Amino acid sequence: MPELRLNVITHDWVIMADERAKRPDQFVTKKVLAPQLPRHDRACPFCTGNEGQTLDESFRLEGHDGWNVRVVPNKYPALSVKGARERGGGGMFRSLSGVGVHEVIIEHPRHDLTTALMDIPHVADIIRAYRQRYAEIRKDPRIEAIIIYKNHGESAGTSLIHPHSQLAATPVVPFQVRARIAEATRYFDEHGECIFCRVLRDELTAGTRIIAESKHFVAFIPYAALSPFHTWIYPRRHVSSFDGITDDEVVDFAGILRTVLAKLYNGLNDPDYNYSVRSIPTDEKYTDYFHWYLTIIPRVTKTAGFEFGSGMFINTSLPEESAEFLRGVPVGGG
Amino acid sequence: MPELRLNVITHDWVIMADERAKRPDQFVTKKVLAPQLPRHDRACPFCTGNEGQTLDESFRLEGHDGWNVRVVPNKYPALSVKGARERGGGGMFRSLSGVGVHEVIIEHPRHDLTTALMDIPHVADIIRAYRQRYAEIRKDPRIEAIIIYKNHGESAGTSLIHPHSQLAATPVVPFQVRARIAEATRYFDEHGECIFCRVLRDELTAGTRIIAESKHFVAFIPYAALSPFHTWIYPRRHVSSFDGITDDEVVDFAGILRTVLAKLYNGLNDPDYNYSVRSIPTDEKYTDYFHWYLTIIPRVTKTAGFEFGSGMFINTSLPEESAEFLRGVPVGGG
Repeated sequence: MPELRLNVITHDWVIMADERAKRPDQFVTKKVLAPQLPRHDRACPFCTGNEGQTLDESFRLEGHDGWNVRVVPNKYPALSVKGARERGGGGMFRSLSGVGVHEVIIEHPRHDLTTALMDIPHVADIIRAYRQRYAEIRKDPRIEAIIIYKNHGESAGTSLIHPHSQLAATPVVPFQVRARIAEATRYFDEHGECIFCRVLRDELTAGTRIIAESKHFVAFIPYAALSPFHTWIYPRRHVSSFDGITDDEVVDFAGILRTVLAKLYNGLNDPDYNYSVRSIPTDEKYTDYFHWYLTIIPRVTKTAGFEFGSGMFINTSLPEESAEFLRGVPVGGG
Repeated sequence: MPELRLNVITHDWVIMADERAKRPDQFVTKKVLAPQLPRHDRACPFCTGNEGQTLDESFRLEGHDGWNVRVVPNKYPALSVKGARERGGGGMFRSLSGVGVHEVIIEHPRHDLTTALMDIPHVADIIRAYRQRYAEIRKDPRIEAIIIYKNHGESAGTSLIHPHSQLAATPVVPFQVRARIAEATRYFDEHGECIFCRVLRDELTAGTRIIAESKHFVAFIPYAALSPFHTWIYPRRHVSSFDGITDDEVVDFAGILRTVLAKLYNGLNDPDYNYSVRSIPTDEKYTDYFHWYLTIIPRVTKTAGFEFGSGMFINTSLPEESAEFLRGVPVGGG
């Protein structure tokens, strides 16, 4: 019989569909790897030499031989950095001016790399860029939430090959975030404990869904993973806001993030994926009830009418099996 | 400047991205229409003559020359019709036996039709089958919610061409549904009015986002549509539960549903889409605060890391422009 599992963080019920379940190796993508990508593409706006094709950069980390990581405004921004945060409309039609920030983090001068294949010190520079932008942008009083995210591959929503991620800072707190915070607060009020800390402790005790551990972080497939290989990386230390990450933790986080992405790359043949950093709204700095984390969603299945119509998920892989599979995949390279 | 709009039903903020906006005709799919499909495919388990390949049917509507619509259990069900609803686990790991119902509605004996191309009396039979199954299945005390949905096309999550839709009955109320009901109830308590009725009235007054109207229903692109051509069909009469639809309304609903799907088919070149019926949890029959409706999501864009990370949406089409475009598309055929 199938089993429903409650994701106590998202509050979603997930159907673990035994009749439709696949073995982990059945999720290996059939992607035909493109002919070797060039290290440099003259036509790519993110490649070295083409810096003038991007808008004025907001941040840069230098390397031995030019820049390591650049942050630039998105050329087609979803939100406008100029203007006041103003309400409009009324009644059933309420609007807000679309002020905010939308930036691109160009992760590497090389055109042909992906995080899974970078070395850890370089990934640490990407995380440093995230942290710097997060800390800087949160000072803007028009901003309520900052979302750092990556779209890897076409089915994950990107068409640009050059390794990059994005940051969007919104003038509202999304309803989904409000709802999850309300539930986390309720848990804290009832139990005097952060529910994320509790989940982490119980996952470590269970052990069966852990993918990797480092000094400061734990990567695991949650008990009620919403989709196959849905992975969370939690800091062991209770911190609400992503920019609370320390220098030591940055390097350690880079290592575990690269480990997980390399395992997905090697184990599932470079699947498309999204990741995003979930952090507390920017007007709150430290709370006892919220805990930042990174979520990775490999795009190995499609959502359909059932998910749209119910908000529930059907997962065709067993988290314990997927985690065991990934534990066995070598990281290599780096 | 972009504009954020609040969807007062889903409570999502939607970014109407002007810098990335496209004209309605830029969403026309580049689908190469397959060579004429056969009216009958001997290898298709849903075609006439192959009735023995499906599980025992739970419902059938007869036509002049054999069946018109058949309902059969899904061969690979996400939920099991047998067994007790039992809780398991505890602490952070809570589970529930996966009991429920998962059926397939085979919409037509012909292999090569899609709803947009069927005649209205036939579409009415499909709606009658939905209603019969909904009313029957809700009697099961293990069931809390019934989701009727359709996946049309590969990017909408189906691989079977033969026209069909599905019904899933779950042993829990999804969190998303609970959250929306809580907000709708709050609105009712504060204003003494159903928020859906209010939205419908205000959309009719505004007029700019209406696609089609019939005696009993209104089809419109909501003010804060979550994605391009995201369409709602609302009953004018306040009814909480889908199975409250009357015989008259069934025929009228079939007409407006076919109209909208035919406009999408003709205007956007047969886009993939999902639709689902949103209805109140089955333990509640009539309430003042909830109003059933049908939502259609053409799969003309992809969700990516921003949507996953925030729960917010970026819409690259303006609802008013999309609605105007669809109003001008002929329905044809039928």
